[in-house]
Amino acid sequence: MEEIMIESLCRSDRKSHPNDTVISVGDVKIGGKDLTIIAGPCSVESEEQIIEIAKKIKKSGANILRGGAFKPRTSPYDFQGMAADGLELLNLAKKETGLPIISEIVGIRHLDLFSDVDILQVGARNMQNFELLKELGKIDKPILLKRGFSNNIREFLSCAEYIMNSGNENVILCERGIRTFEELTRNTLDLSAVALIREISHLPILVDPSHATGVSNLVLPMSLAGIASGANGIMVEVHNNPKQALSDGEQSITPEEFDTLVEKSKKIFQALK
Amino acid sequence: MEEIMIESLCRSDRKSHPNDTVISVGDVKIGGKDLTIIAGPCSVESEEQIIEIAKKIKKSGANILRGGAFKPRTSPYDFQGMAADGLELLNLAKKETGLPIISEIVGIRHLDLFSDVDILQVGARNMQNFELLKELGKIDKPILLKRGFSNNIREFLSCAEYIMNSGNENVILCERGIRTFEELTRNTLDLSAVALIREISHLPILVDPSHATGVSNLVLPMSLAGIASGANGIMVEVHNNPKQALSDGEQSITPEEFDTLVEKSKKIFQALK
Amino acid sequence: MEEIMIESLCRSDRKSHPNDTVISVGDVKIGGKDLTIIAGPCSVESEEQIIEIAKKIKKSGANILRGGAFKPRTSPYDFQGMAADGLELLNLAKKETGLPIISEIVGIRHLDLFSDVDILQVGARNMQNFELLKELGKIDKPILLKRGFSNNIREFLSCAEYIMNSGNENVILCERGIRTFEELTRNTLDLSAVALIREISHLPILVDPSHATGVSNLVLPMSLAGIASGANGIMVEVHNNPKQALSDGEQSITPEEFDTLVEKSKKIFQALK
Amino acid sequence: MEEIMIESLCRSDRKSHPNDTVISVGDVKIGGKDLTIIAGPCSVESEEQIIEIAKKIKKSGANILRGGAFKPRTSPYDFQGMAADGLELLNLAKKETGLPIISEIVGIRHLDLFSDVDILQVGARNMQNFELLKELGKIDKPILLKRGFSNNIREFLSCAEYIMNSGNENVILCERGIRTFEELTRNTLDLSAVALIREISHLPILVDPSHATGVSNLVLPMSLAGIASGANGIMVEVHNNPKQALSDGEQSITPEEFDTLVEKSKKIFQALK
Repeated sequence: MEEIMIESLCRSDRKSHPNDTVISVGDVKIGGKDLTIIAGPCSVESEEQIIEIAKKIKKSGANILRGGAFKPRTSPYDFQGMAADGLELLNLAKKETGLPIISEIVGIRHLDLFSDVDILQVGARNMQNFELLKELGKIDKPILLKRGFSNNIREFLSCAEYIMNSGNENVILCERGIRTFEELTRNTLDLSAVALIREISHLPILVDPSHATGVSNLVLPMSLAGIASGANGIMVEVHNNPKQALSDGEQSITPEEFDTLVEKSKKIFQALK
Repeated sequence: MEEIMIESLCRSDRKSHPNDTVISVGDVKIGGKDLTIIAGPCSVESEEQIIEIAKKIKKSGANILRGGAFKPRTSPYDFQGMAADGLELLNLAKKETGLPIISEIVGIRHLDLFSDVDILQVGARNMQNFELLKELGKIDKPILLKRGFSNNIREFLSCAEYIMNSGNENVILCERGIRTFEELTRNTLDLSAVALIREISHLPILVDPSHATGVSNLVLPMSLAGIASGANGIMVEVHNNPKQALSDGEQSITPEEFDTLVEKSKKIFQALK
Repeated sequence: MEEIMIESLCRSDRKSHPNDTVISVGDVKIGGKDLTIIAGPCSVESEEQIIEIAKKIKKSGANILRGGAFKPRTSPYDFQGMAADGLELLNLAKKETGLPIISEIVGIRHLDLFSDVDILQVGARNMQNFELLKELGKIDKPILLKRGFSNNIREFLSCAEYIMNSGNENVILCERGIRTFEELTRNTLDLSAVALIREISHLPILVDPSHATGVSNLVLPMSLAGIASGANGIMVEVHNNPKQALSDGEQSITPEEFDTLVEKSKKIFQALK
Repeated sequence: MEEIMIESLCRSDRKSHPNDTVISVGDVKIGGKDLTIIAGPCSVESEEQIIEIAKKIKKSGANILRGGAFKPRTSPYDFQGMAADGLELLNLAKKETGLPIISEIVGIRHLDLFSDVDILQVGARNMQNFELLKELGKIDKPILLKRGFSNNIREFLSCAEYIMNSGNENVILCERGIRTFEELTRNTLDLSAVALIREISHLPILVDPSHATGVSNLVLPMSLAGIASGANGIMVEVHNNPKQALSDGEQSITPEEFDTLVEKSKKIFQALK
């Protein structure tokens, strides 16, 4: 087969670094031969909520706990997240379960609040916020970079280059759906992007079927499809009470559904070997 | 989980027909519990070419042979296919191997030429050629309907309704990629459409990773991802000499690559059960 | 300024034909120094409706009457037009007012029914129905070719080439909006396509702000913008009772609004000289 | 005609503020009955360059001088602008010509450097950088907010709400093209967005045909079309030597072409009254 390349890359590309990058967060390995499963609620809402979810997903086999504290919302009048309080609760759940935690950072001035957060997430809307990327390049924590919903692969990897060029090579990519004309889903999970990025780049790439589809019924099949396309892992929204969720309830699955999802995901991952 | 529905459907929807439709073509079953593998060249080019490819894909485990004779091309100055001669050669390969055959029909006035063709294909550009759909609704051969590259699921299924409403219920759907802003692939295979259609409709749905991606390296991972998303089968382009192909050589895989693809596809299909 | 070209064109391009093509329909000239205004209802609904609208738009200054008889609708269960009866009523209005008429043809087998129709329209969904285009290339009536809603300019002009290559050089192009992510309009009128086509091609090009926007309030500003971008004319939907229209009422303007539109359109066209 | 509204707006909408907002910058008025013309190079490159262009565009009738000093580029390895030095040169040109100046701000920590800049621009990639918007809401300088290239009108106006909700009501909107499937232009200028925003919002809106099209030949027709669609003004790139420009030369027009553009723009604006 022929090699697929993007000329303008020089740090995220396989030519500069043929082997898969593997990023360690505590005992968890992201990239290479491992399957990473990140789960948790869209937003941290209360101590009871985050602790209960954390315990359940850990039992099901999740490796990392996710939970939003700073939520970039389309309208300034929508729920914006619990901010610093949300990060504290997330940290409580980390202590309780031992799971590493990931949360979205929206401005570098909040950096101090993220001292206990293991992986910093850059959301889709900030993918080309180059000033933020350059600042995150100066720290050494892993950065999970979500693809902008109308950006192509070259633009996506160029943003990874912004972080790496500033000194931080611990970049995890995440495909979270692109805008299309489909009315039945929020966005469209682009799995050929995953397969292509596995060829072009050595960085680990995850898929987020929850934000991509916005439909809870699709989270399972799109997780399996994502893994079959070559993703190093998945990031899914799990809520103990999806109908009462403060944000994105319609795309959240229950802990019971998550349990099945983990089992089937591992089976597909195994079948690929 | 909640039911996903499209109001305006009344023949292709699961409400009207809860069980999976299974379409038989000779011994081959499309839909339900079977995995269908269609393979062959983009265009029939010569007797040697089509016979050689047919034999090889049969040996690898393909169920149906594909080959284009009428090629709808963007420019009138591009190769338009071998027309009637191409269909004759395709029929020769059918006799030689026993494989059922599928080929694209672009106008109802060609119908007589397709008497030996087992499945008639409607291409993406003709998906909303309602006059053609209505005519194909009057015959009883299976119709493989490809999704238009910028049409949504409601429009896609509404076209199946045009055929079914005219009397032909043997409709096979095929997701073949949608237009997006990605520059590294021809189109983007939309696998959440597959997962959604499996919920909304009882009709079988296949994926075509060759036309979707336009990149031979991506055919394997996107076939596996398509199956994992719930597709009832795949349709892939195989050429004995991709670099010399008269059309779409860059997306064709070799018979050897196809052999691996069939093996891995079956493994993933098995793992889903 | 530099020349903009598309390599694969050889009949619709300015290199092969530097001067503007002017197409005559009775006394009306389309292309060159004239501004063409086509108006009428989306669908012919009754004798009273079409005659009343025809008289009013003529008085306001329209050059050509439009009216759909064969309507390609997304769902087979929607109103499909009055067919042959609709064309007869349209012809009555032509006799009554002297206005040339245009209507959409969806299959070549209907050609005989269109003997009194002055311009045959190919709709957006049939733009790449190459079999239809080739047949329309064998007659000598002007063909108004609408751009497919997700096709680019090269594909659009290549379809004009299909008609011209079969012998009919009387092709009028029509930009009618492309699919975008905007939720407040049906489609998005692409006026840089108009400006570009005026550079690349000698064929006349019109804009259809009614289908493009789907919003009656936008028909006036987008007509003016279309003319300012270089369009040779406009095609707008006018209905004597938009709220009761059988199709597309929400985008139709009243005869009174049309009167203002013609006046302002001429003013802008004049200001460009 | 019926009123078009977006429910979630409460500061940028016409219901809350029926009359056009007019923003004054020195003697220049943006919005209402005036036509605003902003011109200048993509990037400030040298003292000679910016002074020469400033003098020429002033003579032609421009109201405001633009010039980029901080350039958000897709790749970290592309020219990133002259930064603080660029702003100093821009300020020199302001002193020399008396023209107010506008330049893009990419991070709030640069705010002090912009003390002499009259209008702060937020670029398309930062449109949904909500942290930046909230900070810009705390100052009282006019903010020119460019639309993200795949954002719809509701999202665009919601970002204006972020700024206004933080206290700064001096928001100027700018349509700069959306991503589409067209290969001959960089983006597609969306003029129905302009017409719609004039109905929905009281804020002034400009169009940027240079970035939208990326093709210098299209700057004139799309400026005229933009004005005809209802824009309160235009922002165009003018370079004294487009072929040598450090960024975006292919879309820049010469001072002579700009001279014609201003004259024709005023004629169209006049014809609309």
